[in-house]
This record gives sequence, C-alpha cells and structure tokens, in this order.
Amino acid sequence: MRNELVSPFSAGRAEDKELLGGKGANLAEMTRLGLPVPSGFTITTVACKQYYQEGKQLWPELLQQMEQAIGELENRTGKKFGSTDNPLLVSVRSGAPVSMPGMMDTILNLGLNDTTVDALAKATANPRFALDCYRRFIQMFGGVVLGIPHHDFEAALSKLKDQAGVRLDTDLDEQHLATLVETYKDIVVKATRNPFPQQPVEQLKMAVKAVFDSWNNNRAVVYRRINKIPEHYGTAVNVQEMVFGNCGDDSATGVLFTRNPSTGENKLYGEFLVNAQGEDVVAGIRTPQPIARLEELMPASWEELNRICKQLEAHYKEMQDIEFTIEKGKLFILQTRTGKRTARAAVNIAVDMVAEGLIDKKEAVLRIDAGQLGGLLHRQVSPDAKLEVIATGLPASPGAGCGIIVFDSDEAEALGKEGKQVILLRPETTPDDIHGIVEAVGILTSRGGMTSHAAVVARGMGKPCVCGCEAIKIDLKAETAQVGNVVLKKGDVISIDGGSGRVILGQVPLVEPELSDEFNTILQWADEFRELGIRANADTPQDALRAREFGAEGIGLCRTEHMFMAADRLPIVQSMILAEDTEGREAALAQLLPIQQQDFYGIFKAMEGLPVTVRLLDPPLHEFLPSAEKLAVDVALLEAGIGDVSKLDATRALLRQVRNLQEANPMLGNRGCRLGLMYPEIYQMQVEAILNAAAQLLAEGIDVKAEIMIPLVSHVNELESMQELVASTRERVAAETGKNLDILIGTMIELPRACVTADEIAGHADFFSFGTNDLTQTAFGFSRDDAEGKFLPAYLAEKLLPDNPFAVLDRKGVGKLMEIAVGLGRGKNSKLKIGICGEHGGEPSSIAFCHSLKMNYVSCSPYRVPVARLAAAQAALQQKA
Amino acid sequence: MRNELVSPFSAGRAEDKELLGGKGANLAEMTRLGLPVPSGFTITTVACKQYYQEGKQLWPELLQQMEQAIGELENRTGKKFGSTDNPLLVSVRSGAPVSMPGMMDTILNLGLNDTTVDALAKATANPRFALDCYRRFIQMFGGVVLGIPHHDFEAALSKLKDQAGVRLDTDLDEQHLATLVETYKDIVVKATRNPFPQQPVEQLKMAVKAVFDSWNNNRAVVYRRINKIPEHYGTAVNVQEMVFGNCGDDSATGVLFTRNPSTGENKLYGEFLVNAQGEDVVAGIRTPQPIARLEELMPASWEELNRICKQLEAHYKEMQDIEFTIEKGKLFILQTRTGKRTARAAVNIAVDMVAEGLIDKKEAVLRIDAGQLGGLLHRQVSPDAKLEVIATGLPASPGAGCGIIVFDSDEAEALGKEGKQVILLRPETTPDDIHGIVEAVGILTSRGGMTSHAAVVARGMGKPCVCGCEAIKIDLKAETAQVGNVVLKKGDVISIDGGSGRVILGQVPLVEPELSDEFNTILQWADEFRELGIRANADTPQDALRAREFGAEGIGLCRTEHMFMAADRLPIVQSMILAEDTEGREAALAQLLPIQQQDFYGIFKAMEGLPVTVRLLDPPLHEFLPSAEKLAVDVALLEAGIGDVSKLDATRALLRQVRNLQEANPMLGNRGCRLGLMYPEIYQMQVEAILNAAAQLLAEGIDVKAEIMIPLVSHVNELESMQELVASTRERVAAETGKNLDILIGTMIELPRACVTADEIAGHADFFSFGTNDLTQTAFGFSRDDAEGKFLPAYLAEKLLPDNPFAVLDRKGVGKLMEIAVGLGRGKNSKLKIGICGEHGGEPSSIAFCHSLKMNYVSCSPYRVPVARLAAAQAALQQKA
Repeated sequence: MRNELVSPFSAGRAEDKELLGGKGANLAEMTRLGLPVPSGFTITTVACKQYYQEGKQLWPELLQQMEQAIGELENRTGKKFGSTDNPLLVSVRSGAPVSMPGMMDTILNLGLNDTTVDALAKATANPRFALDCYRRFIQMFGGVVLGIPHHDFEAALSKLKDQAGVRLDTDLDEQHLATLVETYKDIVVKATRNPFPQQPVEQLKMAVKAVFDSWNNNRAVVYRRINKIPEHYGTAVNVQEMVFGNCGDDSATGVLFTRNPSTGENKLYGEFLVNAQGEDVVAGIRTPQPIARLEELMPASWEELNRICKQLEAHYKEMQDIEFTIEKGKLFILQTRTGKRTARAAVNIAVDMVAEGLIDKKEAVLRIDAGQLGGLLHRQVSPDAKLEVIATGLPASPGAGCGIIVFDSDEAEALGKEGKQVILLRPETTPDDIHGIVEAVGILTSRGGMTSHAAVVARGMGKPCVCGCEAIKIDLKAETAQVGNVVLKKGDVISIDGGSGRVILGQVPLVEPELSDEFNTILQWADEFRELGIRANADTPQDALRAREFGAEGIGLCRTEHMFMAADRLPIVQSMILAEDTEGREAALAQLLPIQQQDFYGIFKAMEGLPVTVRLLDPPLHEFLPSAEKLAVDVALLEAGIGDVSKLDATRALLRQVRNLQEANPMLGNRGCRLGLMYPEIYQMQVEAILNAAAQLLAEGIDVKAEIMIPLVSHVNELESMQELVASTRERVAAETGKNLDILIGTMIELPRACVTADEIAGHADFFSFGTNDLTQTAFGFSRDDAEGKFLPAYLAEKLLPDNPFAVLDRKGVGKLMEIAVGLGRGKNSKLKIGICGEHGGEPSSIAFCHSLKMNYVSCSPYRVPVARLAAAQAALQQKA
Repeated sequence: MRNELVSPFSAGRAEDKELLGGKGANLAEMTRLGLPVPSGFTITTVACKQYYQEGKQLWPELLQQMEQAIGELENRTGKKFGSTDNPLLVSVRSGAPVSMPGMMDTILNLGLNDTTVDALAKATANPRFALDCYRRFIQMFGGVVLGIPHHDFEAALSKLKDQAGVRLDTDLDEQHLATLVETYKDIVVKATRNPFPQQPVEQLKMAVKAVFDSWNNNRAVVYRRINKIPEHYGTAVNVQEMVFGNCGDDSATGVLFTRNPSTGENKLYGEFLVNAQGEDVVAGIRTPQPIARLEELMPASWEELNRICKQLEAHYKEMQDIEFTIEKGKLFILQTRTGKRTARAAVNIAVDMVAEGLIDKKEAVLRIDAGQLGGLLHRQVSPDAKLEVIATGLPASPGAGCGIIVFDSDEAEALGKEGKQVILLRPETTPDDIHGIVEAVGILTSRGGMTSHAAVVARGMGKPCVCGCEAIKIDLKAETAQVGNVVLKKGDVISIDGGSGRVILGQVPLVEPELSDEFNTILQWADEFRELGIRANADTPQDALRAREFGAEGIGLCRTEHMFMAADRLPIVQSMILAEDTEGREAALAQLLPIQQQDFYGIFKAMEGLPVTVRLLDPPLHEFLPSAEKLAVDVALLEAGIGDVSKLDATRALLRQVRNLQEANPMLGNRGCRLGLMYPEIYQMQVEAILNAAAQLLAEGIDVKAEIMIPLVSHVNELESMQELVASTRERVAAETGKNLDILIGTMIELPRACVTADEIAGHADFFSFGTNDLTQTAFGFSRDDAEGKFLPAYLAEKLLPDNPFAVLDRKGVGKLMEIAVGLGRGKNSKLKIGICGEHGGEPSSIAFCHSLKMNYVSCSPYRVPVARLAAAQAALQQKA
C-alpha cells in the first residue's frame, strides 16, 4: 500500500480507498478523469494512524507536507489563504475507508476571517452572503473544533432575531449579520479564553486535529464495535477549494441521476436551483426546477453536464448519482457515486446497458440486488403513498392487502364469498380458521411468530400476513381492537403490508406485481450461468403451475399437512387422530386415501416430467385439534351448568384426548418420522396415495418423477425402518396396479444429530434436503415462534446477532453443520443428491452458501423462484471471479 | 485363527471362543487344567460356515474327522457307540461365540437305542431310569431334530397317565415307560415315514445338522439382527460323554458358587441332591441340601470339590458358578463360569481377593460394575420381597419409599409435619407444590417426563420419584386414583421404587443404603487411578456436604432456580416477574438479594477451598407462575358469576401477563442467558449475591473458589455481553466491599451451535461445562418431557435406539458434537477447563467417553459421586490396557 501522509486529488484513484478514504478516493478518480472537480488534497489514513502514535499531535513532517499541499493548491487555483482580494476558501471533510456515521461533519468556508470575509463579499458582490458564510463558519468551527455547545450560538441568534423583530434567519439583513459575527466571536473568546483563530492555516490545522480526534469519539467507537470495523483503519481528511452556486443568475446548484432511478429510463433525472447553495436544494425553502429546464437556462452547462454524465457512466459502467455546482457559468462536479434505484429500474438499466454495450450479460446479472427483486413479485403498497402506520408486526407473508376488519372466520368466509375484501384479525389462527383465511385478502394476528399457523398457511397460499403484532389488543366479544389510542371496529378499513409487517389505517394505493420482458431477459441470462438447480416448495397444483411459470425445475418440498388442514378434510383427520385404536384410525385413513391420491395426481400432473419431492406428514397431531385451554374452559362452564350440558361428557372425553396428545415442546415432540414410526398406517396411506397417483398418470402417458422424503430423521435406524415401510407398500401397490414404480427415497436433514451422522444416513438415502428452519431452531436452541416475538428483535437491535438466522442462513453455526453433513454424506454416497427446502432456499446470501457447498438444488416458495435463479447465477459468477 | 473342523476338548483353550464357541472353549480350558471334565469334542464354527457353503450337507472331510473324534472318544472313555455292555452316550449342545438364545437346545443321552437302553439299565441297575432316559431322548430328538410337534408326544404321555390312573410322570413304572417308548417310536414313524434312527452315529450326524440349521432359524436371525451379531459367526456343536448322578447313593449332582454371591463371604455356597440328575435340582420336586452337607455324606468328593474350586478361582481369578455331578463316587465338573453377584458381594469379593493376593488393586477396581453400585447408595425395595406391582412409570429419582397417599400438597405438608409418611400423588407438580414435596417421602405423578418439575425437584432433594405413570387415572375431586381395576383412596398405603419406576400396592420391606469399609477401600483405590476430577451437582449446603462426604472435589453445577422456587421466596419471585417495568423488577430483586446471598454463603462455606460453579438463572420465567389454562378457567367461571367475582379483574390481569410469558416451546424459548440479556437486573442481582457471599467468607478467613457459569449460550456475543455484566458488577462490589475477587467465568455448552463455534466461545471462557441433557434434546430434536412419555419407550423396544440417550450418552451424535467442541475449544484456549454437568456425568459409559475426550471433570448428583469415582478409574485403566 502507498503510505503518503498527504496526497493531492490529482495523484489518487478509486482503488486507493484504504489510504484516502472513500470520499477522497472518489474525488481523486474524477480528477484523474479530467472532470471539473474543485482542486484539493487528502490527508491520508496513514497520517491519522501516526497522529495517534505521536500522542495526538501534528508533527513536523506532516505539517511540512500540508504546507506544501496548500502551496500547490494556491498555485492551482490562483487563490491564496488569507488573501484580501482572492482568498482561498476550503471545505474540510472526514472520510474513512468505510462509510461511518458518528464522526466529524463537514466544515465549510474555512479560510474566512475578518479580512477575507470582505474579499468574499466583493467577489460575490453580496456582502450579506459573505457575512452569513462567516457566521456559519464560526458556529460550525466553534462547535465541531472548539467544542462550544451548539446551544450557545443558537441562543445568541434567537436573541438577535427577537431584537430585530424578525422570524426567519433569512430575514436578517447585512447589518444584523455583522453584529452576529461579533457576538459569535465573543462567545468563542468566553468559551476558549482565546480569540477566534484568524489564521487560515491555523484554522486548518485545528480542523484536521478535530477530524482525527473524532475517529475515537464515543459514537464512532461504539459504531465500530457494533459493526466490527477495525480500530486501525483510521480516517482521512479531505481539503477542497470552495465553489459557490449562489454568485448570481449565472450560478446554480443541483443533484441528478444519470437515468431515472424509479423506472430506469435512460434520461437525466434530477433538479436544480439557480443562484443557490447545495443546502438550499435540500432545505426545501425554494422549489427546485426539473433538471431538463437547465437546457433552456444554461445550454452550455447542460451540454457539458450531459457529456460528463455519459463519461462517468462509461467509466463506472453504472448509473450515477451526481452533485454539481455552476459558479458564474463554470460547471463543477462535487460528487459522484453509484445511484440507488428501485428493483424495476435496476432490471431495466442492466438490460439497457447490455444493449448499449456498456456491460456484458454476466455483469448485468451480477448487478441486480437479488434480495430486492422479491418485491416485484407481490402486490405492494405504492411507494409514493402517504401512510398512517399504526403498528408493526412480523412480516410473515409478503404482499399487501386492504379490506374491512372481521374478527370471525365464519363471517370472513361469508363476506368474502359476497365479494367483499376482508382482513381477518385474530389473536392467532387455528385449523378451524382455514375457511376464513381462504376468503380473506390478508391475515393479521396479535400473537404467534413466523412459523405460526397463520404465517405458514398464508405463505402457502401466497396471501399477505402480518403476525405477532402485539401492540394490537383484541376484544373478540366486543369485536374491537385497540392500538395505542386508535380503536378499530368491525368493518373499519385497514391495510397490511406483509413484506414489512406494517399495519396501516384506511385504504392505501397498491401496485400490481410486474414480470416485464427485461426481467425475463435477466433471468434467462442467469440460467446460463447458474449451477444450482432451482425447485419450488408447493403443496397444490395451482402453486406448482405458478412455480413452473416462474422457472422452477421441480418441487423440492410438497408438504402434505396442508392437505390435511383443508376444511372438508379436517373432520376426517380429527376422527383419525381421536380414534381409540388402529382399526378406527385405519377406517378414517381409508376415507383420506382417495382424497390424498387426488392431491398428488394434480401436483404430479402439473409438474409433468419434473421431479416432485413429497414430504410425509410432519407436524404434531394436536395441531389438528382444538386447544386444551379452550376445552378446559368449556368443561368448567358445562360443569357449572352453563351451556348445552348434554355435551359435557363428549367435551370431557375430547379434552382427555387432547391432553394425551399435548406436548411441552411440540417442536421437539412426536412429529416427523416419529409419527410414521408410532402410527405406520398414516405413512402407509400417504405412500399408497403417492404411488397410486403416479400409476394413474403413467397409465395416461404422463411422466411422473415422484420422490418420497422422510422428515425429522435423527438416527439412521429411523430412516431404515421407514424405507422398509415404503418398500413393502410399493410391493403391495405394484401387485395391485401392475406398475412397479421407480421412486427415490430421501430424508430431510434438519437435526444436528443427522448432520454429524450423515455418513450413516447417506448409506440409506437417495437424497438429502436440508430443512434449515428446524436446523436453525435446534442448532441455536431457538423456538422460532417464541424467539421472533420475544428476544430476537432485541438481539438484532443490540447486534448480538448480525442477522435474523431464520431469514439469513447462519454460516458459522448452522452452515458448519451443513458442511459437515455434505462432507460425510457425499463421502459415503457419491451419488447423493443434496438440496435445501427451508425458507433460506429463497434468500440470496444463503443460496450463495449452498452453491459454495456444491449442493444440487435449492427449493423455495414459488414467488421466490426468480430471486433464487438470479442469486444462484450470481453465486456461480462470483465464485469464478 | 485356527481352522480345524473338529477339535477334542483336550486341544482347545479359553481364548478359542471364536472357533469353539463359548461353551466349547470353556470345556476345553477345564480339560487343559486337568480337571475331571467328561471327555468330548467340539465341531467348530469353521465347520458350520462350510456346511452352508456345501449347500447344508455334511461333507466327506467333516464326516471323516467326526469319525476319528468319535473313535478317540471311545478310546478315552473305554465305552463304545452302540455297545451292548458299555455303550457310549453323549450330550449334544450348540454353542456360538456369543451367548444366543433362540438356537437349538441340548440333546441328552444320544446313543440310546433299543439295545443300548438295556445296557444302561444294567449299568445303573435301574431299568426304569434307563427307559425314562430313552423316552426323553426320543421326545427331545423327535422335536428338535425331526421337527415333530412337541404336542404329539405330550398327548401320548397324558393318555398313558390317564390309562394308568396316575397323576405325575414319576408315578409311571417301568412297564408304563416301556409302552411309552413304543408309542413314541410309532409317532416318529407316522410323522417321518421312517423308524426312529437306531444307529448312534446316524443320530449324531442328524443332531449336528439340526444344530447348524438352527443358526438360521427365525428366532435366531431376528435375535442377531436386533443385537447386531454378525451373520458369519456360525455356531459350534459340543459332543460330550454323559455322566449320571443318579446311579445310587454314591452319586449326586449339584450347583455352587465358590463364594457367597449375596454377601461375598469366602465360603462355598450352593446345594446338591443325592442320587439325582441335574434337572431334578432345578425342578424342585425334591428339596436339595446345602452344599456343606456334602462334607458329611461324601467327604472325599467334598475335599476334591474344594480343591477344584480353589484351583478354578486361582486360574480365573474370579468367583465361579459351577455345575458338578458325582457318578459312583467320581466327581465330574460339567460347567464353570464367572458367577453373578450383588453389588455388595462384588465389592467385598474384590477387596478380599486383593488381600488374598489373587488380584491387584487395578483388577479389583476394574471388576466392580459401576452402574450396579448406584443401587447401594439409596434405600431400596428388599430384593426378597414379594411385590404387587400395579403400574410402572418413569424412574425419575432413585430410592424407594412407602407411605399413605395424599392428593394435595397442603395436606401432605400437614401430615408430614405430624410425622406421617406420605406419598404425594398428583397429575403433575408445579412450584406451588414445593412445600408438599419437601414433607413427602416420595412423589408419584401421572404426567411429565424425566425433566418435569417433580422429577427435577425430587432428584435435587434425593427423594424417590416416579413420574409420567400414565396408567394411573387421578380424580382430584374425589381424591381417588384408578389403576386398572385397583382403586386407590386417600390414606391407602403404597410404595414406589424410583430406581425402576415401579408402583407397588401396600407397604414393602426396605433395605437401608450401606457404605461399607470395603466400599470405601475400593473408592480410595479408584482415586489412585482416575484422571478425571469428580464434582457434584448440588443446590443446597446439605447437598454440598453430602457430596463432599461421598468424595466430590467441588460443585460442578449449582442451580439457582431451585432457590427461587422455595415456598417463602416464590411470591417475591412472582412479583419480580409480574413487575410492569424495570423499577418494579428491581424492587423485588432487592428483596431477593440478601436471600440469595445467604444461599451462596452456605454452599461456599460447605465447600471451603473447593471450586463451586454457580449457574445463573436458567428456566423460562413462566415456570414460576400458575398455568394459563387454570387461569383461563378461573376467568371464565368468574365471568359467569361463579366464585369471588371481585377477583375478576386481577385474575384477568394475571392471565394476560402469563399469556405474555407463555411460549410454544419453552425448552427453546426465553431462558438461559437470554433472560440475562433481556432482564440484566436479574443476573446482576445474582452475581452481586455470589460476590457478596464470597467477600463475606473471605473476611471470615474461609477460602472460596466461586465460578460463574452462563447457561444456554449459542453465540459468542451472548457470552461477551454477559462477561461485561459480570465485570461491571464485580467492579461495583469491589468498590463496596474492598475485595476484588478472582472469579472464573465460563459457559454451559449445551447447544449444537455452541459446539461447532466453540473456538469463538473459548476465546471468552475460562471453562466449558457440557450440559448434555439439553445437548441431547437439541441434537436429536427430542423434547425429553415429551419423548420419554410418548415415543422413546417404543424406540427402545424396537431397538431403533440402542439406549435411552438421556441416560447413556449418545457417542455417535451428541458425542461427536462434544468432540468437535473440545477440539475447537482447546485449540483456541489451551488452558480451558472442560467438564460435564448433565445427568450423564454420573453414568459409567458416558464417564468413560468424557475420559476419552480428556475432559477435566464430570459432575453428577451427590449420590452418584461414588459411581463416578469408580467409573473414572475404570476408564483410565481400560484406556491404558
């Protein structure tokens, strides 16, 4: 690395960030390109580090180099520090290698003093402006460098305005400001027992020291600790000639994007103010004009600006976000950086830039923020809408919805069928609410986490859902809900945004999802580069078809429990669960068999020719039953003679059964393959339904690639036993149908024990599918339902964890377990197919990790398939880079 | 390995088990020692394997070698197969390398036929006996070799007895038996269309084939599959000359132990019958005489028997279990093997044998079954008692207790204080039951697993407890309980055995625990050899003192939650939990501080000079509150106007708070260090109490080695944050007390993520303590509370798991995670102390595993400390061997 103490803008380049800081490197790069950047130099991070070694003193070598840099700057600008006719004024800005709030702010107009202020007045022909600059400079310098409380200056300003009888700063005239400058200087004398420094070089030294010191102020230290930014980086200081956009009608200042950041249209987009300073544009006192008006008002500058924008785009090969100032007809570029844009614009710009020959397809694919893409695939709250957000819950299922509040699922169903848009508002939902959820446009609950019933069902249906919104207090009897001071009644209109968790009062404008040609183009390019297969998690033929449209190459997770929860089946499922013996259970299962078979028939048909991985029943059985608490209340009331007393015995019996099935920690209870081992008849029915459906389709000439997946395996013996069950059922079906079906049998890898014994398990599996939801729960010991509502938000706020591990795969812990599993599994069985079907399968950084483990595929919700295609391509391209 | 097909007893030795099978090797060894063993030979496992390769045929080479062996046997015995004056009779027995039920039984008296039966009659001067032998031989051979149903012979026998008008087989006379032999031979002809084989060599070939075939019968195949015995082992066949103890009053047969198997006393212990066959001793028709009587009756044989017993003990260096027969004054040893004994006898014998110079101290230590020892440390049900076991639940806390049934904790407390022995019988217990548990002699619950409240509290108090005994249906209102047809009322006496889970009707005799001098001697020897430190899990000064008495070298786990649960503190704890804000919580904590300080003062004092590891609060807070279900019922009833309606608002408020704290999966919820992070004031209070107590004791001149342990760490950041909390509290206490205490800070390793990121964590920890209860739960995804009551019993019955992983550490899975953690942890921090404080810390095979990982210590319940000392020594000795 270079190790200069001071470096003129003309000597650096964009790559020198570590030495010059981000800001300094950027200014140097533009200077190097020959763009009209005000001259200046950077005091480097090397100087900062030595400053601390020198005991926080500016030492001779640095002072000598600064002096030389100032001399060169004076030569280049033809201005001079302290000159009474052409004074050099500079801005001083901190700039670390990584952007770091909490450090010293900008100081403008350094170099002003009691004499140069007159020179500035003359140069701008605006004495009021010069004085205003001077008093601002004293205030800024006094606060930041001399440590004088901001309030001292503000009090003096207020007092003066009172005396002058004016309301706004801008109403103060030249004379007032002259007085204020004197008052400010007195404040400085009082606070520091020294006059305000009049020597520009002295001012500069003090400012540089202040910037260096700010590297170790409290806010900066805390920020670095939390964000794990190394202490040793240090900060640079940028010293740059001031330019003024407020020197008259031939001056102006503005900001622009080189393309439309909202749509991507290839046309300058921005605004400017004539005869103004940069801060005026932001302050909003005057209304800026659209950038196109500049062509009319200052055609030469307009032309130059367009030329520079093209040059910067050609150089950076990216849409730029630019700040400029025109001083007396001369254009200066003060800053350029890559412009932020919407997902839609990002896609369009990338495709356009390929057409324009600026970038190639790889670069286009790499450039889209895959995470941002997801938003394009759901209906969204219009970004321009003014919203009255009354609460925020967990963003449980993306998309936005508006409707009238209903507190009861029967009513939701009735109104929904009438064509009304309803939002179902419940403390939480149970399988008894399914019919209401089906007809609602959105679900809002006050309890439950990202894997609560409402969340899981809503995501499965692609319906907006906000969960665990604990700020909402629901009174089901009164059919009202209270949020702070707002009382919501049945029939009131609200909107929910399942992507952000926001709950909004009233109707909000929504934006429809869009799958433009450009979007498809990017995804086709992505498919050329990616190595990971992309499958979808889908439980219905509709979802399967949607996934296929979005480019899924198979179903990686077909959950069978949602089929059990449908309203017409739940009574049969409940009678199966409550059966007193195997025979009773088998009778109920016989009723379910043809229904399940029809489910699989539809999904296999929709996915013709592509693999479909069916997971056998996973959740604990009591999820299909009413809650013990509700039943206990019913029993107590019936015992007290309240209600239909004839139901007492039946309710008691039901309570007893529910209690039998109740578990202390259902997540770790009798579920997954444990169900298949305790009640083999359930899994047998499911396997039979799968095989029958496949046989039926084969007979119709339709190709089926069914795969059976055993959930929650912790020990190889469980898988072996379930393999035997599948094999014997297959033999039976083969005998009945005459079709001996080829079928893969694999297992979820979702428990730590399965990971560390993956070699044993791989000896009995055709494929592994990582269930990273459960694996994250067991690796961390976090119940997702509880964590996301209770301690996880605090963990994230305190940066105890870098990310929510249920959203972004935890590579160090969960990822380590996966790495062990892949190594052991492939070591034993080189043909083992390995995928992931947890929610991480649709999250870009997690997909990159899966790529790095050389997994075969990721599987995610249909709506995330395009995201996954792109992320997989990016991972492949980045690994090669 | 040797590969003979046939081997005479004189050619083999004890080490040849794989070739000769266990029985054959044993007979060969005794022959080699020159003991009077009836002659014979073994057809080897090599022959068995080739038999299957030859298509289940005896091939010429084998037949030739068998013929030679028979010839040699005839020469040695002076008897001859088929001889009419001195016929050779043999027994034929299977004998695999590992003991394997399910294979062919013994065939006795092979060689008998229509002519040799007369010779036998002459030789024994007992024609009736000879005929009885012949008919038994036909029946045995017919069933086992010829596959004729047992029932066919039994029916003929019954019919004959009816015709003869007698009731017992022994009432049949010579003539009857002669008839029966003819009938049996007819049955054989009918079933096989062949006469009963008369040629002894033919009989032998058929018997050998039958033994080989039985290696692959269904029962044997299933047994091997379940017990993972390799198919390729094969079985051997032992052919041995018959001897008869029923040749007159100079003949006898008996069984004996070389020492007393119950007490260990060094004196022959056993019984014999004059003029009898071995099976008569077992059949119990005649009453055998104690072995000492032999001295009087047959002094020469008695002397020889004593000499042989000494020789066998000197040879095997083990107490032997011997079968012998005296034929016409000549003593034969038919079998010897290591004798089974009680734990008490084992200890005494080992110590005696060291004194006798038979074995050394190492051998003595290795010889005790550490698992069996635990039983000596609790009061037990007398092994001789006849019991009426009415149900079996989970063996939640060892020891036995008898008392009257009480259904209510208040009543249990009242009666207990009156000096009554009570068994508290509840569906499950909560913190509200503590006062009842304290006064009960045992706890029995119908719900809950090995980590349920009742189980944990009872184990902590060393009180017998049987949990989750679901067969018991409790009616709290009626104060009755039903088990099958038995109805238990309040006041009925029952007994429980917490070591086996048995529930027994009525009072049973109990045996007091015993810590004999011999026991202490063994443990002192163990201490010389072991490398692992032994600590105890103890929460009270009483437990700490007991642990110290038993030899604990420190406290490895002092749980603080039990202190919170004591009856006088629970209201304060509840007000702390229900506080609406930090201030309210701090006020309650201020009340708890002096109480906690007193707790720690007592424990530190009891453990003077030894380390005490205190774990900060671990369980979810709602464990300290009443259940939501109960409150919901209360609210519903109050709303209906039933009960003290003035309490409605308060009950509703309480329900709301309980609901706020309620969790879907409390095991994975807001507990452990998460509590410390969410409510730092709780942990601060605990740390302050620890430090204050230590300062107080130091001021009194008592040495304290306190260690603070942070539970449930999943990410290094959690530990770092808690370290800061401890450090700042320590500074505060140092300022207040003037004592700056040295204190170790470490963490439980009880989550898979902590294991795989142990390097990061070790950078911030002085010690690791594996919490293998929780680690087993999360690695397997098994909630112990649910698993042990629901699917785990079935898993163990079906051998899906070799052991209950909560009892015996699962080395392949959980152990692999521990191995990873130890490797990463020590790699980062070579000074890291590593221990275990889960219940596995007291289980011998788990202790051996901890030794193999080179951990520093194990910690277990006080009562298990002696077991752990011994097991640790055995692990060290075995590793060196």
